[in-house]
Amino acid sequence: MSNVISSNANLQLDQNTKDAISRLLVCAAHSIDNNLLENWPLCFNDDATYKVLTRTDFDLGRKVGVWFCDSKAMLVDRVNSIRSVNVFEPHVYRHILSTTEITERKDEKYSAQTNYVVIRTMYDGDMAIFSTGRYIDEIIIKNGSALFQSRTVVTDSIRYDTMVALPL
Amino acid sequence: MSNVISSNANLQLDQNTKDAISRLLVCAAHSIDNNLLENWPLCFNDDATYKVLTRTDFDLGRKVGVWFCDSKAMLVDRVNSIRSVNVFEPHVYRHILSTTEITERKDEKYSAQTNYVVIRTMYDGDMAIFSTGRYIDEIIIKNGSALFQSRTVVTDSIRYDTMVALPL
Amino acid sequence: MSNVISSNANLQLDQNTKDAISRLLVCAAHSIDNNLLENWPLCFNDDATYKVLTRTDFDLGRKVGVWFCDSKAMLVDRVNSIRSVNVFEPHVYRHILSTTEITERKDEKYSAQTNYVVIRTMYDGDMAIFSTGRYIDEIIIKNGSALFQSRTVVTDSIRYDTMVALPL
Repeated sequence: MSNVISSNANLQLDQNTKDAISRLLVCAAHSIDNNLLENWPLCFNDDATYKVLTRTDFDLGRKVGVWFCDSKAMLVDRVNSIRSVNVFEPHVYRHILSTTEITERKDEKYSAQTNYVVIRTMYDGDMAIFSTGRYIDEIIIKNGSALFQSRTVVTDSIRYDTMVALPL
Repeated sequence: MSNVISSNANLQLDQNTKDAISRLLVCAAHSIDNNLLENWPLCFNDDATYKVLTRTDFDLGRKVGVWFCDSKAMLVDRVNSIRSVNVFEPHVYRHILSTTEITERKDEKYSAQTNYVVIRTMYDGDMAIFSTGRYIDEIIIKNGSALFQSRTVVTDSIRYDTMVALPL
Repeated sequence: MSNVISSNANLQLDQNTKDAISRLLVCAAHSIDNNLLENWPLCFNDDATYKVLTRTDFDLGRKVGVWFCDSKAMLVDRVNSIRSVNVFEPHVYRHILSTTEITERKDEKYSAQTNYVVIRTMYDGDMAIFSTGRYIDEIIIKNGSALFQSRTVVTDSIRYDTMVALPL
C-alpha cells in the first residue's frame, strides 16, 4: 500500500513558485467574474492549449470537447467575439476555487489540479450552480510569473450549455 | 497589452503578512458560521467601515447599500441586536472562501479581493445558495495581526434579503 | 473583549507544516472526487477516528453519528465494501474546501477547522448541494507527512442521506 501523502510530501516547492501558481489561478477566475475578460488570455503562454471536456469525454481519453483552443491568439479571438456579441451582460459567473494540489514537477513545468464550482447569477437575481469539476493545469514559470501551458477543464456534468460564451 | 500576471508578481509580500491576512478572512467567516458572532467585530479596526452592496450598486459607484456601518462599535451594536432578536437559530450559514488575491500594497495597508459563496441550511435541512459575490477588503496590520479597515461585500445578485440579520 | 485574531497570530507554524496540512486535506478530497477511493484511508493514522455528525448531534455533545470508524483498517473495509456494491458510478462528488484555520498546536498535534461544500452531480447531469459544513481535524506529522488522527465531519443539515456510501 503506497503512501500518496508521503510521495507528495517530497515535492518541495519554493514559496515564490507556489505563490505564482496561486496568483495565476485566481487571476484567471477574477478576469472572468469581474468583467475583465481581456485579462483572461494573458494568463496563457503563446502556444498554450485550453479545452473543456466533460468527465465522460475525459475518462474515455477524448482530446476534444466542447471548447478547444491551441494558442493564446485563439483565446484573444474568442474574447473579442464574446465582447462583440454580448452588448448587455445577461448573467454573471462566480468561481470558487478549492485548494490546489501540485502533483508533479518536471524542470520548470508544474502539474496542478484544482476543484472548482461556478455559480451563475441571472439578471433577475436567480442563482444556480452552473458548473463544477476540476482544472487540470500544466503551468510554466516565465520571468517569475506563472502561465498556463495547458488548461483542461473537466466538468462533472455530462451536460454543458454550449450557448454560454464565457469560458470556465 | 499589459501583463496583469507579471505586475502582480511584483507584489512580493512576506509570509507572515499573507498568513495574517488569510487568518483574518477565515476568522471572520468562522465567527458567523459557528455561532461565535461576538468575535466578528473583533476582526475590524475601531474606525472601520463595513458595507454590503449589490453588484449594480457597486458598478454605479453607489457608496451605501443594504448594510452600512462605519465603526467597530456599530458592528458590536448590530451583533447585540441580532442576539436579542433571535432566540432560536432559524438557519445557519456556511461561508466557502475562494483564494484571496492581494491586489495592492500601500505602506502597511493591503487591498484584497476574495470570491465567496454562502450556503444557508434551514432548520428542516434544506440547503440553498444564499449569496455569492466578492469581498473587497482594505486590511491593516496592527501588532502583527490583520484587521479590516474597510470591507465591502459585493453581491452578484441584485436581490438581497434584508430581513436576514446575519452579516455576510 | 479578547482579541481572537491576535491570539491566533501567536500560533506561528513553519511553512512545511502548513503545506503538509494543506496537502493532506486536498488529497483526502481528491481521492473521493476523482475515483481514487483506495487512497482515502491512506490519509489517516492507524488508530485514527473518522465520524460524521449532524450539527445538532455535535452541539449536544454526542460522540456517535451516522458514520463512526475508529481505525484505518475500518476505513479500508468501508472502501472495499463501497467498491464491491457499486458496480456503476451513479453519481460523483466534488469537494470545495474553504481556507483552513489552524486553531491549536500541542507538541506535534494540530487542530484545524475547514468549511466545505460537496456538490453531487447525477448521471443525467443534475447538480445539487449534497452537503455543507465543517471538518474538525486533529492532525499529526509523521516522517514529514500529515495524517489525520481524528476527523469529525459536522454537517449543517440535520438530514443526511445514509444510503449514500461515499465518505464526506
